[in-house]
Amino acid sequence: MSKTVEFFYDFGSPASYLAYKRLPALAAEAGAAIVWRPMLLGGVFKATGNASPVTVPAKGRWMGADLQRWAARHGVPFVFNPHFPVNTLTLMRAATGLQMRQPQDFARFHELVFDAMWRAPKNLGDPAVLAAVLAEGGFDPAALHALAADPDVKARLIATTEEAVARGVFGAPSFFDGDTLRFGQDRLDWVAEALR
Amino acid sequence: MSKTVEFFYDFGSPASYLAYKRLPALAAEAGAAIVWRPMLLGGVFKATGNASPVTVPAKGRWMGADLQRWAARHGVPFVFNPHFPVNTLTLMRAATGLQMRQPQDFARFHELVFDAMWRAPKNLGDPAVLAAVLAEGGFDPAALHALAADPDVKARLIATTEEAVARGVFGAPSFFDGDTLRFGQDRLDWVAEALR
Repeated sequence: MSKTVEFFYDFGSPASYLAYKRLPALAAEAGAAIVWRPMLLGGVFKATGNASPVTVPAKGRWMGADLQRWAARHGVPFVFNPHFPVNTLTLMRAATGLQMRQPQDFARFHELVFDAMWRAPKNLGDPAVLAAVLAEGGFDPAALHALAADPDVKARLIATTEEAVARGVFGAPSFFDGDTLRFGQDRLDWVAEALR
Repeated sequence: MSKTVEFFYDFGSPASYLAYKRLPALAAEAGAAIVWRPMLLGGVFKATGNASPVTVPAKGRWMGADLQRWAARHGVPFVFNPHFPVNTLTLMRAATGLQMRQPQDFARFHELVFDAMWRAPKNLGDPAVLAAVLAEGGFDPAALHALAADPDVKARLIATTEEAVARGVFGAPSFFDGDTLRFGQDRLDWVAEALR
């Protein structure tokens, strides 16, 4: 399997969730491997001067309706999280840490967190709620927090975020096939075509 | 022909140009009529707090590449105007005036202006260039300027822009089938589906 697609995402991004739900099947169909690139969207926004669409209220309202239409089209259960935006720093560090140290738990952590954020949806910004979600999902919250606090893990997340910005990323989800950046869950069909 | 799609646009928007090139065939195929709604995108931005994607440099770079890919896919000649952004107040007033007073000239004015903006591309913000383009296209520049200065025409453009904002528009192009807003030339396939 020599074809790859890089997937830059943040759990706090509803469009990243929709992409997460669809990308594995599209990649598999194309015989391509996904390179998972957890990044901190807040860091990307800060570095590029971009901001969440919801900072323009009319755009936020339209985006909510638009994402619901995409979710319905592809049969993805989706409920816009009423606690949006959630600070995802710890979550993105944990994803990075699992990727570095416990790759065998990486996939189920993603399913757990993405679903808790955009399917349940729960207030993962509340430490007690987050701990309960993690525990119910079979993770030790204290161990994950320790992993997220590891300096090497923190540094890796910063490096990934800075790399994304250096390569032209300004939002999430973003995909690369080679040097070609495609932005948005609404470009997944283009990503799939490029992989085929 | 009872089905209609409202098309809110501004000549200064490259995505409006791409939509303009594709929409007539899509609407005809669906047996739907286009309701042309020239608006002032600058007014929409001011009212909603939105801004051109190019205000975020990384987003502007990606958007330029993305629009080129869409144009290539659909065989639309497209050159990003180096004079972007162009003040389109007079042009949008002229489009509005033609719609009110000389509907027989509305279509060829659009072909002329959209092509001069995004195919040639020319600096339509320069009065001399604009006058030359209009004259070459068979229009009397002085007569069009007089039309654009008509208080009823000015008021109509303001009213259309305010109506767009009131209905949720925050950018261009925007489409309505009934009350459903769809934003962006990249939603044209959804527009076409909704019309069928």
